[in-house]
Amino acid sequence: MTQEEQKALFRRAMEASRRAYAPYSGFHVGAALLAEDGRIFTGVNVENASYPAGICAERSAGTAAVTQGCREFKALAVASPDGEASMCGICRQFFSEFSRDLAVIYGKDEEHLTARKLCELLPSDFVLPKA
Amino acid sequence: MTQEEQKALFRRAMEASRRAYAPYSGFHVGAALLAEDGRIFTGVNVENASYPAGICAERSAGTAAVTQGCREFKALAVASPDGEASMCGICRQFFSEFSRDLAVIYGKDEEHLTARKLCELLPSDFVLPKA
Amino acid sequence: MTQEEQKALFRRAMEASRRAYAPYSGFHVGAALLAEDGRIFTGVNVENASYPAGICAERSAGTAAVTQGCREFKALAVASPDGEASMCGICRQFFSEFSRDLAVIYGKDEEHLTARKLCELLPSDFVLPKA
Amino acid sequence: MTQEEQKALFRRAMEASRRAYAPYSGFHVGAALLAEDGRIFTGVNVENASYPAGICAERSAGTAAVTQGCREFKALAVASPDGEASMCGICRQFFSEFSRDLAVIYGKDEEHLTARKLCELLPSDFVLPKA
Repeated sequence: MTQEEQKALFRRAMEASRRAYAPYSGFHVGAALLAEDGRIFTGVNVENASYPAGICAERSAGTAAVTQGCREFKALAVASPDGEASMCGICRQFFSEFSRDLAVIYGKDEEHLTARKLCELLPSDFVLPKA
Repeated sequence: MTQEEQKALFRRAMEASRRAYAPYSGFHVGAALLAEDGRIFTGVNVENASYPAGICAERSAGTAAVTQGCREFKALAVASPDGEASMCGICRQFFSEFSRDLAVIYGKDEEHLTARKLCELLPSDFVLPKA
Repeated sequence: MTQEEQKALFRRAMEASRRAYAPYSGFHVGAALLAEDGRIFTGVNVENASYPAGICAERSAGTAAVTQGCREFKALAVASPDGEASMCGICRQFFSEFSRDLAVIYGKDEEHLTARKLCELLPSDFVLPKA
Repeated sequence: MTQEEQKALFRRAMEASRRAYAPYSGFHVGAALLAEDGRIFTGVNVENASYPAGICAERSAGTAAVTQGCREFKALAVASPDGEASMCGICRQFFSEFSRDLAVIYGKDEEHLTARKLCELLPSDFVLPKA
């Protein structure tokens, strides 16, 4: 993935973040998920008065993709106009189910992007023993 | 909402359920969410090896809607080919943030549908006191 | 359960709330869970920078009880010095697994308590169809 | 922390796992959390028919500790008689709020333990930007 492609995906995430529902944290986050088949799915964080019932932008994008029949992912960009957004442990867990080599792209703006593989962000991942 | 409209929404939910990712429970669920503006958003359950990291079909549909700029909802149908699906407490909590009068439609098949308002399914809902 | 017993349980919940970890919402909640065998377990809300990773006071009390071998519950009081606390949908879902007749006790102070059965707070609860 | 201390903590986790409530996965997990002040708190996984409403053993131990006024942790052992248990992303997120240097101890039995720091298991952790 070229730097230009990374920037383009990050811009899609930033664009999506405008529709985030974040009245409690004030932290508006968008995500753009590039599937192996080339499709891009976006997501935003959706908060809730009962904080644990909220869902992060990354997982919103993930469920949108799975709903459209897509389960193999190449890259995920995360962006916020309110400060640099990194990926929380719940979202790392969610995507480790599908694509351990997913490239996670984040940064404060498109000139300062970091790309890391999911397997580096969640090493020694949880595995359910076979029954 | 007429019975025919309810059935049509339920069929959309059932259709979506084919793309559910449910390798742990074997319970494939789909949801179809009718927004006040007439748009319909679908979702499926997406399970995870760490069970608490999974997301139900209803919330998948909800985050898809919010991501597309939609926050007011009229009806939500839930369906599964594996048995009657009802709405869990987490999903009730999620939608109580947006539409307390949401009509929740569910049943084992389209000839046996029940419709209940969300405020009946989650009475005395949780409210975060003002700071 | 007498009104005096309800008040006593509510006081235990209020007392526990002092140890809540709630730097994000500022809403400190405590819970006191009376098991069928007479033991009382307490819990507090534990928030997280990633809001969905937090856990409510009621479920903290519930996991403490299960950890000590207890799975049948009689009453659950919820209290906060920061405003009236009611039970969110996630916590209703959590306890519906164990005790549908659980008495949930809440209010702004011990002179204004409401007691409702869990099955009224989460009617038509979610059931996983048999495989 | 000596190897003997690690084994002793792991045994406490294994012992706790007998009280796990895991009817859906059949994977019974226990956790033992050593606080900086020397106290040990245990937890078990508590599953739910709505899988996302369940709570892992590690977080059960964590909420028990916070409820008892403890927020600084030294080591956390995770154990299961049903296969090696590792720590999921949600639990890593939960503890990163409190102790980034927490030693996480796990393995299939006390003769095969691995110890890793939490900050290695959840690098580049999520931070909520200041408002």
